[in-house]
Amino acid sequence: MSDQNPDKSASDLKPTVPIAHFWAVIPAGGAGTRLWPLSRRSAPKFLHDLTGTGRTLLQGTWDRLGPLAGDRVVVVTGVAHADAVRGQLPQLSPGRVLAEPSPRDSMPAIALAAAVIARQDPDAVIGSFAADHVITGLAGFAAAIREAVAIASTGLLVTVGIEPTHPATGFGYIRSGMPLRVDGAPSARAVAEFVEKPDAETAARYVATGEYRWNAGMFVVRAQVLLDLLRMEHPELTEGVEAIAADPSRLAEVWPSLTKIAIDHAVAEPAAAAGRVAVVPATFGWDDVGDFDFWTELVAESGAGSPAGGVKVLGSGEELGGGQVLGLDSTGLAYAASGRLVVLVGVEDLVVIDTPDALLVVPRSRAQDVKLAVDRLTDLGRDDLR
Amino acid sequence: MSDQNPDKSASDLKPTVPIAHFWAVIPAGGAGTRLWPLSRRSAPKFLHDLTGTGRTLLQGTWDRLGPLAGDRVVVVTGVAHADAVRGQLPQLSPGRVLAEPSPRDSMPAIALAAAVIARQDPDAVIGSFAADHVITGLAGFAAAIREAVAIASTGLLVTVGIEPTHPATGFGYIRSGMPLRVDGAPSARAVAEFVEKPDAETAARYVATGEYRWNAGMFVVRAQVLLDLLRMEHPELTEGVEAIAADPSRLAEVWPSLTKIAIDHAVAEPAAAAGRVAVVPATFGWDDVGDFDFWTELVAESGAGSPAGGVKVLGSGEELGGGQVLGLDSTGLAYAASGRLVVLVGVEDLVVIDTPDALLVVPRSRAQDVKLAVDRLTDLGRDDLR
Repeated sequence: MSDQNPDKSASDLKPTVPIAHFWAVIPAGGAGTRLWPLSRRSAPKFLHDLTGTGRTLLQGTWDRLGPLAGDRVVVVTGVAHADAVRGQLPQLSPGRVLAEPSPRDSMPAIALAAAVIARQDPDAVIGSFAADHVITGLAGFAAAIREAVAIASTGLLVTVGIEPTHPATGFGYIRSGMPLRVDGAPSARAVAEFVEKPDAETAARYVATGEYRWNAGMFVVRAQVLLDLLRMEHPELTEGVEAIAADPSRLAEVWPSLTKIAIDHAVAEPAAAAGRVAVVPATFGWDDVGDFDFWTELVAESGAGSPAGGVKVLGSGEELGGGQVLGLDSTGLAYAASGRLVVLVGVEDLVVIDTPDALLVVPRSRAQDVKLAVDRLTDLGRDDLR
Repeated sequence: MSDQNPDKSASDLKPTVPIAHFWAVIPAGGAGTRLWPLSRRSAPKFLHDLTGTGRTLLQGTWDRLGPLAGDRVVVVTGVAHADAVRGQLPQLSPGRVLAEPSPRDSMPAIALAAAVIARQDPDAVIGSFAADHVITGLAGFAAAIREAVAIASTGLLVTVGIEPTHPATGFGYIRSGMPLRVDGAPSARAVAEFVEKPDAETAARYVATGEYRWNAGMFVVRAQVLLDLLRMEHPELTEGVEAIAADPSRLAEVWPSLTKIAIDHAVAEPAAAAGRVAVVPATFGWDDVGDFDFWTELVAESGAGSPAGGVKVLGSGEELGGGQVLGLDSTGLAYAASGRLVVLVGVEDLVVIDTPDALLVVPRSRAQDVKLAVDRLTDLGRDDLR
């Protein structure tokens, strides 16, 4: 094992030494319904290259955690995706893919990882990072995580707060409290509370106060502390994951009995109420690529994708000649993955997602409503297409 | 041979006796570029069912001419399409498909048909009707053609003028002259002149006068008169088609030498200047289905196509369940012919044409510009997709 990670995609960082006892946990789940028909239950969004960099979201997550955690990375994913995860991350030791027999939300997944890691490294600090987010500014990310680990070592649960760029209604918010005084973590504050996704008016008020940040679902905490916090609220869940960690052959038997609950509700909110949560402000760009509107924005900002007459192109697309997208006087995003030619004439801010068995056409402004189409497919019994 | 044509698609007409000596000529050509990627050089629009009736435009043309011409129907088409024409019109005797070795515009095609027909029936009156137009109101069509034949029998070239519904710039116009006094043709007038496709301002002026009608390219004339009129302007072209009619084995040798010219320029305009053309006003609906905007309108008016959440659907489409199009809060037209599911979310007046090797997305308002995309494919050397 080497603690040095020379991953080229992290080349904008100085060579760094991974943080001692820091383990990265990557929950790789979520269907990404609003990115249908690209994202499917059989191939959720974390398995796709949405950034046009040649790396999938999962691989991008691995790339930025390697310099911090070395090879101490654990991925928790659905049993259906375990092989795909191993295929995309050949550097990951097979034993570090934990396959959930069924989805039980984020808490059992992260708690199982914590229990497995705590047995190997009782001093472990774990950091949990979703597999399907996009982060820009890797130096800022690394600095924030180092700060979070410093605080977590003191026994707190630490989250990372994203500076809001607009009054989003699609994210939960974190309200900051008093500054903390922790060595190596100058910008940390206590978390006064976590709040659910607000309506537009409430979101605007949150942003106006300057006290609220987006909750990106990143948690850094000592593995043992996480298990102890969980034990106070959900002792049976804690016992369950510890039993599996002690004897992995019990997974299939114990897993279905575990409470289906998100880490926010199970641990973060009660711990915040008890004054045991800190927040580190992010100094990096973050996007959960929740829908095609965000995705188009992301691609436009990153400069990824080949322009075809003003249309950003991902997938197999390059400007026609050898490529698969021809845009005339058009703007928006085309994802061409069916091998067919896609021609857009005179469309504005339109998203066209072309896959072998399904085609989606939606204006950027209606990107949220893709979920309704997937709901309708479910109603119609077209599970083959979900 | 029976002179009675019990074709069921003409069932809204009283049983009629075909008009004695009347022959229908159907020039089946034209690429229909603005209907790409549905219409291709290899499968032009007349071979497609654009009306959702289960009959192609060619078959629809056959259906409305049968009651007037019986089995005296001749189709002139490119050699590449002759088999497809025979396949779509099994009632047509194989000898009545004239296959052009190369496209030479409408005059050689119609003149060859006239020469072939004149040898069989020296008293023949031919009527030429494009294979790719849509006509509604079959009783009105039949009445207009009977009137045209009555006038043509007196030795005039007769055209049918369509009452303009708007100042179209995509059609030529016919300026009416003095009323004629012909038995059986009460509404006929002389043609003062044929004018080319006008600009918008000129078109508006034409329509305001009430003297102009659209030139739908329909001509009714005694075969012998047509050949005589042509002989005055283009004697070598007339001799050429007569030579082929006399000895069909000379087709390949003679055809390439024939002047490439439209019937309007070759015969209709000079004959109008000489006072030898009449116009019968149409009392039927007509559309040349020139682009997807017209097509969407046509489908909306006819009630054809299955609605999928407001989107008119043609091709394989029916509302999802068994079908291939799902429209949510969307309007426009979807043609689904790739076997894939097409999902439209929140689009307005959008046209989506889904074929196995190419997809087109264009707003109805930009339907004219589809031609630009095809031009661009030509520039890029993608003849495989044209």
